[in-house]
Amino acid sequence: MKIIKNNNKISELRKDLVSGNWVIIAPKRMQRPFRLKETSPLKRLRNSIKNCPFENPQLFGHGEPSLVLKSEKNKNQWAVQVVKNKYPALGGGTQKTKHEGPYELRDGIGIHEVVILRDHNKNLYQLSNKEMSELVRAYILRYQELSLLSYIAYISIFHNSGLSAGASIDHPHSQIMALPIIPPNVEHSIRGSLNFHRKTGKCVHCVMIDFEKKSKKRVIFENKKFIAFSPFALNQAFEVRIFPKKHSPQFEFMSVEEIECFSDILSAVLKKISKALGDPDYNFFIHTAPVAAFYYTHYHWHLEILPKKGIQAGLELGTDVIMVSVSPEDAAKILRNTKI
Amino acid sequence: MKIIKNNNKISELRKDLVSGNWVIIAPKRMQRPFRLKETSPLKRLRNSIKNCPFENPQLFGHGEPSLVLKSEKNKNQWAVQVVKNKYPALGGGTQKTKHEGPYELRDGIGIHEVVILRDHNKNLYQLSNKEMSELVRAYILRYQELSLLSYIAYISIFHNSGLSAGASIDHPHSQIMALPIIPPNVEHSIRGSLNFHRKTGKCVHCVMIDFEKKSKKRVIFENKKFIAFSPFALNQAFEVRIFPKKHSPQFEFMSVEEIECFSDILSAVLKKISKALGDPDYNFFIHTAPVAAFYYTHYHWHLEILPKKGIQAGLELGTDVIMVSVSPEDAAKILRNTKI
Repeated sequence: MKIIKNNNKISELRKDLVSGNWVIIAPKRMQRPFRLKETSPLKRLRNSIKNCPFENPQLFGHGEPSLVLKSEKNKNQWAVQVVKNKYPALGGGTQKTKHEGPYELRDGIGIHEVVILRDHNKNLYQLSNKEMSELVRAYILRYQELSLLSYIAYISIFHNSGLSAGASIDHPHSQIMALPIIPPNVEHSIRGSLNFHRKTGKCVHCVMIDFEKKSKKRVIFENKKFIAFSPFALNQAFEVRIFPKKHSPQFEFMSVEEIECFSDILSAVLKKISKALGDPDYNFFIHTAPVAAFYYTHYHWHLEILPKKGIQAGLELGTDVIMVSVSPEDAAKILRNTKI
Repeated sequence: MKIIKNNNKISELRKDLVSGNWVIIAPKRMQRPFRLKETSPLKRLRNSIKNCPFENPQLFGHGEPSLVLKSEKNKNQWAVQVVKNKYPALGGGTQKTKHEGPYELRDGIGIHEVVILRDHNKNLYQLSNKEMSELVRAYILRYQELSLLSYIAYISIFHNSGLSAGASIDHPHSQIMALPIIPPNVEHSIRGSLNFHRKTGKCVHCVMIDFEKKSKKRVIFENKKFIAFSPFALNQAFEVRIFPKKHSPQFEFMSVEEIECFSDILSAVLKKISKALGDPDYNFFIHTAPVAAFYYTHYHWHLEILPKKGIQAGLELGTDVIMVSVSPEDAAKILRNTKI
């Protein structure tokens, strides 16, 4: 058993006895504005620039940033800064597994950070390629540092844009959660791609990329190093996945040229989604190998974008069977043909 | 290979190459009112009684009902009727597995029905116990008939209440989907409970129920035959699960007394949720054993209720790790103490 220095327990990780899935119970996040009788999270008020906690994060009680990238145009100005989440879902504690009756739980140890962009009103699809690559560089720099912490098993980087996508603050920001466990759906994907590799000697994602490039039916955008397509078996209508064409398990080892190509394709796809679908709210997240990456050479990292065009209802919640009424072929055609 | 009579292919089931999960691609559902540039599904207009397709389902082009339960008070009036979904996600086709490059797909064979309640304005929590037990009886009768179809592997019964819970029509209705596959998360639960049974000789759900009854911390309501509690490792804040106290894998074999007790506890919990949380939208669904039930004697059926009090954002979508800021103990206390 390893003792983590910071013993200020913020949350609890609980394991589902049947599925093995994990839940983070983080009551301190209740200190955020929260009303019990609010029927819909969408009724929250949008916050103005004046009251925005991310305009000047330090003034609003955020501590010293863990990373600051300066603006190209004005060296006195920050362009991207990373701070600890003021209402973190993860914090200190011990790694020890505890029990309550038949149940298993642990302290929610880990790090929860916010990646803040300078401009309150600039949605990510409005960033220049230069600005986008600065954001990607911030993700990578923080990932590399957090992955050195011995108690971290997986680092999730994600972006929620808009209230209906779960962003409680309008000001554009991404989040980084360094977790002490490998999340269940990452574990499933790792196992699935390992099984495919054992059977065929090939990377399942490389096989898909090859087929999509040939068939072209679901491809949305392509550049020298990356490809974006709507997946054959998708999780949501208008879902887009971006893959490096060269097999690579880990996103954090991109070259400068790869960062540029990745920023280019991410910008292009977000612009197309915004134009074709009427500026929808969206989520995106990176799927990359867990931090002990030498075990996961069969994996192929990627980014998934989910525009908010539907609701997970009883069927999806009750069975995990996804039902979509727009095929990935139709969605890809619409997005591919959207001029940006 | 078995040929299904109705060869009118309505949808496609596609298998994810990595996870093994299934997706239903149902383009015919696009014929429902749908706008590409609608930024949020919540902006749809509510439909008035006059234009409601469920006020007189046959007048609005629904075919003959597969089940009609008459009103107690007025024998000329229907109280519950079940019709085929006008925009079904499942239909005819063959059971044969096909391939497109490396991918696997099948015709989406199955049955998609709608269970319609008579009163346009009566949310389920406003039903009398008598009316609720009629609804439960409709679920059971349709389940029993559909489970006789040789090509059906699992029947999902669910209820979406309100736009933010994915209901596209206000008029209270539930849905029944008879699927040709066992859904991934049902498969995981079956496997998880089987592993527990092999290790301990006990039903994992019976063990949980025993512990919850003793600890009382998460119990919300209890009657002679059923218990409702907020699960230790939940999928969403304010989630409630209702279990029969007696071990039983299959919901469709309830006795008359059990139907009454089940309707009583479902009514009570929905009333408490509505009162404590400000009449939120919600989903519920039944988890029961797959139709070839003799294989699944270790399973324990239950109903899950998910009030819409949060949004699945980037973390949940990207990792399946759920983050909640209200513990199940707090949620249970609030609901338990809500007078109805």
